[in-house]
Amino acid sequence: MRLTKMQYQATVTIEQKAGMLDPEGTTAKRALGHLGYAVESVKTAKLYEIVLEAESAEVAEQKVDEMCQKLIANPIIHNYTIKLKELN
Amino acid sequence: MRLTKMQYQATVTIEQKAGMLDPEGTTAKRALGHLGYAVESVKTAKLYEIVLEAESAEVAEQKVDEMCQKLIANPIIHNYTIKLKELN
Repeated sequence: MRLTKMQYQATVTIEQKAGMLDPEGTTAKRALGHLGYAVESVKTAKLYEIVLEAESAEVAEQKVDEMCQKLIANPIIHNYTIKLKELN
Repeated sequence: MRLTKMQYQATVTIEQKAGMLDPEGTTAKRALGHLGYAVESVKTAKLYEIVLEAESAEVAEQKVDEMCQKLIANPIIHNYTIKLKELN
């Protein structure tokens, strides 16, 4: 029995944990201030859009979680969320 | 008549335009391959979460658009989208 694979798109959002410094956000806030835009706060985050094949949504989610743990996120300073969408 | 200001949170997503190189995505895809995760593609994007005060949603959106044009995005290589949420 050949197991058909589906295609999924995972959107991974990686943010700094609360209390962690966000130098890019701090710099952007200061620069915006110099341009005359007084904002309350600026937080930055990174987005990864990964397209992969897997037997099921559960398998896809589990693989992407492993990718986050092993490579994409730093569990010590980052929080990450995964949103999954079936493509075909 | 004192104009009351509302607080808004703008989420700005900045992506490379189609056809533009995405070195971070390419590197991540290769590294994931070395770890045994064969994925179809990896695209990266940047997220800015800006909290600001403004007289209305239209004024807030317009200010954030100016911030993108002047500082946060590079209109030549980036596409950007703005999602606005009233906070109070």
